[in-house]
Amino acid sequence: MLKAIKEHRSVRNFIENKPIPEEQMAKLIAAATRASTTGGMQLYSIVVSQSQEIKDALSPMHYNQPMVKKCSAVVTFTADVARFSAWCRLRGTEPGYDNFAWWVNAAIDTLLAAQNFCTQAQEDGLGICYLGTTIYTTKEIIETLKLPKGVIPITTVVVGYPEGESGLTPRFPLEAVWHRETYQSPTSEEIEGYWSEIENSEQTAKLLQENELENLAQVFTQRRYTKEQSVQISKSYFEALRQQGFID
Amino acid sequence: MLKAIKEHRSVRNFIENKPIPEEQMAKLIAAATRASTTGGMQLYSIVVSQSQEIKDALSPMHYNQPMVKKCSAVVTFTADVARFSAWCRLRGTEPGYDNFAWWVNAAIDTLLAAQNFCTQAQEDGLGICYLGTTIYTTKEIIETLKLPKGVIPITTVVVGYPEGESGLTPRFPLEAVWHRETYQSPTSEEIEGYWSEIENSEQTAKLLQENELENLAQVFTQRRYTKEQSVQISKSYFEALRQQGFID
Repeated sequence: MLKAIKEHRSVRNFIENKPIPEEQMAKLIAAATRASTTGGMQLYSIVVSQSQEIKDALSPMHYNQPMVKKCSAVVTFTADVARFSAWCRLRGTEPGYDNFAWWVNAAIDTLLAAQNFCTQAQEDGLGICYLGTTIYTTKEIIETLKLPKGVIPITTVVVGYPEGESGLTPRFPLEAVWHRETYQSPTSEEIEGYWSEIENSEQTAKLLQENELENLAQVFTQRRYTKEQSVQISKSYFEALRQQGFID
Repeated sequence: MLKAIKEHRSVRNFIENKPIPEEQMAKLIAAATRASTTGGMQLYSIVVSQSQEIKDALSPMHYNQPMVKKCSAVVTFTADVARFSAWCRLRGTEPGYDNFAWWVNAAIDTLLAAQNFCTQAQEDGLGICYLGTTIYTTKEIIETLKLPKGVIPITTVVVGYPEGESGLTPRFPLEAVWHRETYQSPTSEEIEGYWSEIENSEQTAKLLQENELENLAQVFTQRRYTKEQSVQISKSYFEALRQQGFID
């Protein structure tokens, strides 16, 4: 397997603010652009924030995780139908891409490009971490990065030079995600099997003690990702979609 | 740049129905699972359809493009919160992942996994093509692949052994998608520049003649991707999201 894929890990400790040379960043952006894209339209924009000022401004939107201020670049991957639509209008024809379907198409383009960027970064010895917080604070990111209508953040990647070691995180056995011909819902026994290594790990034991909870599923549902928070995020991302012109 | 990224092209002609050995497919699925995933939750399922029966059944959902019947495998990448939620219930805690935010999180997981699958496939000499039609006919795909509530298709990849040559498709200059620090809307002159190579190509000249249209933007807005069709797709994908339990 490609080393950059096989040895992927999320890196959260970086040599502080070490700049990424222009030509290295150009190589990563070029790798991103080689990904498949709907109709050749490249419906994304990649905002590379390397100045301390913008990294600091973005930091609270990513819950003040220290890596945001310390990494080399905060790279915000945005779905973008604005550039394509502007071209259509320049050519005297009205674009019809201000709707949910084109947000989905653009989000797909954006994420395939993001993953190419990350694979190439890792191939080149850089470390990356995706920030799921991007959809929690979308409206604030839109304002900070000055995103116009037709452009909305999908995900963010911090990139930089790794400091220290970061471990590989466990994955389910392949059978958990691999369905043959059609979907087969797993039995309870199968689900137990998928989780057994993770549930029986030392890391889980530590988590349960810290959180004073009985099992790992409770850590997810009652601490990390509660229903209440998820409903709030759904509402605010939906509002951002409306504000940026992707839903009526 | 990694060869598998640099030389990516969409492959639509395959050696007919040549099977992909089990261990090769396992390697591609393993590559997919190494991608970053929200909270280690792996919120996706990969449905690998290799039988002629299922490929034929899926064919009309992808507008009868011949590659769907002829490729080695039609691989449907689905966002999946069902498996995770089932585990939470087994552990006596109520999951809160039946909402839009978790569809977005799961879609992100799904697409990063899909792109790893494709990069590894290309590294191994296989050819791939993403099928955007997945969001056009989602409800039919759900039925054919027997996807339960909490699972919804995001994209589909046909994979197989390439037959003949497929050309690289053009990309905009890097500056079209690369923004420094914050977003800068392109000027009309800049947009003209991004498109000049593509608009002045022989392929575009041929397209305009075939379609009896004046410019390439009209081919997009009046033939390939009309507003009317996009509004219809938005509506039907939204209905599928509701049916599968991701929005109220």
